[in-house]
Amino acid sequence: MDFTIKNAVIPITDGYTTVDVQVVNGIITAIAPDLDVIGTRINGEQKLLLSGFVNAHTHSSEHWQRGVIPPLPLELWLAHLYEFAPLDTEQVYLSALGTAVETLLSGGTSVVDHLVLIPGKELETIATAVRAYQEIGIRAFVAPLIQDESLSAGIPSGESSPIHEAYFRSTAETLAIIEEAVRLFHRPEEGITILVAPTGIQLCTDALFIGCIELSNRYNLCRHSHLLETKAQEKLAQEKYGCSAVEHLQRIGFLSASTSLAHCVWLTDADINILAQTQSTVVHNPLSNLRLGSGIAPILKYRQAGVNVTFGCDGASSNDSQDLLEAIKIGSILHNVTDFDYQFWITPRESVEMASLGGAKGLNIDAKIGSLTVGKQADLVLYDLTNLSLLPRTDPIGLLVLGRPSNVVDSAWVNGKQIIADGVVTTINVDELRQELFNRSQWETTRPSESVAQMEGRYRQVMGL
Amino acid sequence: MDFTIKNAVIPITDGYTTVDVQVVNGIITAIAPDLDVIGTRINGEQKLLLSGFVNAHTHSSEHWQRGVIPPLPLELWLAHLYEFAPLDTEQVYLSALGTAVETLLSGGTSVVDHLVLIPGKELETIATAVRAYQEIGIRAFVAPLIQDESLSAGIPSGESSPIHEAYFRSTAETLAIIEEAVRLFHRPEEGITILVAPTGIQLCTDALFIGCIELSNRYNLCRHSHLLETKAQEKLAQEKYGCSAVEHLQRIGFLSASTSLAHCVWLTDADINILAQTQSTVVHNPLSNLRLGSGIAPILKYRQAGVNVTFGCDGASSNDSQDLLEAIKIGSILHNVTDFDYQFWITPRESVEMASLGGAKGLNIDAKIGSLTVGKQADLVLYDLTNLSLLPRTDPIGLLVLGRPSNVVDSAWVNGKQIIADGVVTTINVDELRQELFNRSQWETTRPSESVAQMEGRYRQVMGL
Repeated sequence: MDFTIKNAVIPITDGYTTVDVQVVNGIITAIAPDLDVIGTRINGEQKLLLSGFVNAHTHSSEHWQRGVIPPLPLELWLAHLYEFAPLDTEQVYLSALGTAVETLLSGGTSVVDHLVLIPGKELETIATAVRAYQEIGIRAFVAPLIQDESLSAGIPSGESSPIHEAYFRSTAETLAIIEEAVRLFHRPEEGITILVAPTGIQLCTDALFIGCIELSNRYNLCRHSHLLETKAQEKLAQEKYGCSAVEHLQRIGFLSASTSLAHCVWLTDADINILAQTQSTVVHNPLSNLRLGSGIAPILKYRQAGVNVTFGCDGASSNDSQDLLEAIKIGSILHNVTDFDYQFWITPRESVEMASLGGAKGLNIDAKIGSLTVGKQADLVLYDLTNLSLLPRTDPIGLLVLGRPSNVVDSAWVNGKQIIADGVVTTINVDELRQELFNRSQWETTRPSESVAQMEGRYRQVMGL
Repeated sequence: MDFTIKNAVIPITDGYTTVDVQVVNGIITAIAPDLDVIGTRINGEQKLLLSGFVNAHTHSSEHWQRGVIPPLPLELWLAHLYEFAPLDTEQVYLSALGTAVETLLSGGTSVVDHLVLIPGKELETIATAVRAYQEIGIRAFVAPLIQDESLSAGIPSGESSPIHEAYFRSTAETLAIIEEAVRLFHRPEEGITILVAPTGIQLCTDALFIGCIELSNRYNLCRHSHLLETKAQEKLAQEKYGCSAVEHLQRIGFLSASTSLAHCVWLTDADINILAQTQSTVVHNPLSNLRLGSGIAPILKYRQAGVNVTFGCDGASSNDSQDLLEAIKIGSILHNVTDFDYQFWITPRESVEMASLGGAKGLNIDAKIGSLTVGKQADLVLYDLTNLSLLPRTDPIGLLVLGRPSNVVDSAWVNGKQIIADGVVTTINVDELRQELFNRSQWETTRPSESVAQMEGRYRQVMGL
C-alpha cells in the first residue's frame, strides 16, 4: 500500500508550493519536489493536499432523526430525540457508516463518535459501531455515551436537592461496560480507540466521573464530555455544586491534556483560564449551537487564552448534516460578530490547522497525525481544485474554508490506506448504504412529543420564558 | 414546452401529499392527483416539488475574488475588493453564469444581481449580464449598482461636513445610464427586469436617491439598496442626516412595497416599524454578515413586526459561495441564539416560504410567482429525495433546509422552460464554463492592499478599535 503523490499543491508559510509526497507502510517518508515514485503513483496535479480533519464530536445514531426534530432548545430537543429513538444494532451500523461517509467526503479522516448505547445491548452497540468504522476504514474514536441520572435531572429545578427517577443502570455496571469495551475494542494502532465519555455534568454523578478518571488513568484513555452547552446547564451546575461546572470538573480531576469538551458555550473568564491551565481541548460545534439556540461559544477568547480548539459536527439531528467543511466555515466566521476587532478573526489557514492538528491534540495523538510532516501517519486528503465550487482560482484554502465546496474530495487515506479514490468511497458500497437508509426509513412530518409536553412547563418556568 | 409532473411530493398544511402538476404555456394549470399527461411527462416520484427560491441580493462579479479577501470588516473589505477588481466584460459574462449556475443548483430560479458596473462601460456591463442570464434562462432582476460619492465617504469621519474626492461620474449621467438601461433591457415578461439600485446611504447623495425614485415611478421599477449593513453606516447616517438612515429614506420617499433592502443589521425598533408601515422587504444575507463581522440582523423582530423577509447570498467574495440553501439554513437557525424563546424560531417550512414567496413579494411579483398555485408562472424545482444527503427519510423540507444538501436539484423550470434536467444545467455547457473560469484565473495568496493600509488608521479610530 505504498504510494507517491506527484505534484500536489501544499500550503507553506508564505503561500503554496508543489511537491511530491512518499508514503511507505502508512508513514509519510518524504515531502519534496521531484521524488521517485515508490509504490502506486497518485496524480496530485491541480489538487490541494492537506492533513485529514477530525470530526471531533458527533453522535452517529442521530442520523436517523435528522431534519425532523422541530426548533427546540437542547433540553426539550433531547426529550424529543429519545422519545422517537428506538434503535436496533442494524440502524447503529448504518448510521455509523453514513456519518463516516459524510465526514470523509468533507475532508475528515477521523471521527469521535459519542455513541448512544442501546439499553441492554451496550456492548453490542459498541461492537457494531466499531465494525462499521473498521469496514469503511475511517480512524474512529468511539466514546460510549454514559450517564447515571435520568433525563429530567438535566433541567435545573430551582431547588437545591431535587428528587429524580433513578437511572435504570447502576454506576458500577456502567463503568464495567466501559472497561469491557476497552478490553474488547481499544486498538489504537488499528485505528479504533475507546474513550471514557460521561455525557456531562447534567446527567452524571461525581461517582461516574471519578470512575471514568480511574479507567482513563489505568488504560491511558482520552476523556470526552459535553460541557456547558446551554444556559440551563450553567444554572444546573450552580444548583448542583455551588460553583461553575468547570471549577467542579477541575476539582475532581477530570480536566487534562487528554480531555476534549464539546460545546463550551457558557464559560466565564475564570473557567477559560482553567481550561488553559489544564490543557483541555474545546470542541466547537457551531451548527448545533445555533440550531438548538444554545449560544455562541467564545471561541476567540479561547484562542487568545491559549486553549486548543477544534471542530465537530455534533449529532446529525442537531445540525442536521455531518459535513465537516460546513462546521469549519460557520465555526470560523461566526465569531466575527462577537468581537469587532478583525485582527482576532480566524483566518482560513488557522481554521485548517484547528480542524487537523487541533483535533489531533485533543485526542493526544498529535505526535502521530494532524499535519503534513515526515514521520507522521498518512491521514491525507487531496482536494480537486478544478471543481466548479472552487473556481475561479484564487486562494485554495480560502476557497475550501469560506466557500461551499461540493464533491471536492478526490482522494483520502487513513494510515496510508486509500478510502476515497476519484471522489468515490472505495471501501464500502455507498449506493447500497443509500438504498438501505432509504428502505429503513419513511417520510414523516414532525410528531407531537409527549415527553416535551411533560417537561415544557418546568423548562419555561426555570428559564424565565 | 408544456409538461406534466407525475407523482411529486408537495407540502400541504398538515404534511405532504403526492400530486400531478400540469404546466401549459409556462403557467401552472392544474395541481391534483391523477391528471392526464399534457406535453412532456416528468417523473416526480420520490421527488419534492417546491416553488423556486429567489437569490434576492448578490453581486455576480465578486465571483472572481471569492476565497481570497482576508477577514476584514465591510469598509476595509470593500477597499480590498475594488483595488483588485479590474474586470472586463468577458469576466462579467462568466461570473454572471457562475452565479446563476450555483443559484439554480441550490433551488433558486430568480436572482437579483446588484451589478457592479465597469467604469466607462456601464451599459456594456449591463448588456453582458443580461445576455448571460438570458442564455442560461434564470429569471433575472438586474440592479445596476450606482453611487455618486467616492469610497472614502462610506466611513464616518467624526466630523459633520467632511470633504471627499468627487466621484468620477455625475449624478445626472448616472441616472441617464439607468434610464437607457431600462429602455434597452427592461423586459419583465421575458424574464429580465431592471431595478433602480443606489448602493446605499453611505455612497449616495439625496439627489441620486430622488432620481432613482423618479425613474422607479415613471417606469414602474422595483427599488433595491443596501441598508445599515454595518455599525459604521449607523454612525455615518447620524453624521449625514442627524437621524437614522431609515427615517431619512422614508422622508425622501424611497421606501415602498416595491423596495427591497439588503442586510438591515443595525435598525432600531422605530426603524423596524417604518419598514413595516412602508411594506419594505428585508433581504437577509446571513453568511456575508458573519464573514464581514457586520452583525446579526434582528430577523425575528422583523417577522414579529410583520416585515417581509427573504434571503440572499450576497456577492461571492463576502460569502464565499452562491449556494442559496446554505444562506437559507444559516439565515434560519442563526436567530435561535439571539432570542431564547424557541416559540419564535423559524421553522423549515417558514424558511421555504420566506425564500420563495417572500422573495417574490420583495420584487412585487408575488401575484405571478413564489408559490405552487394554479395560474402562477411555473418557476419550479424538483428535489431528488433519494440523494444520500437527504437520507434517511424523515421530513423532506426539514432535511432540505436544515441539512447540507448536495446535488439534490433534479429539475428546474423558469416560466415553464426547463433549465435543469437530471441534475444537469441544460441551457449552457457548464463544463466549458468551468474550464473558462479555470483558465482566466490563477492561484494566489492574499495580497497586501494599499487602499486598506490607507483607510485602516481612520477606520480603527472612528470605530474605537
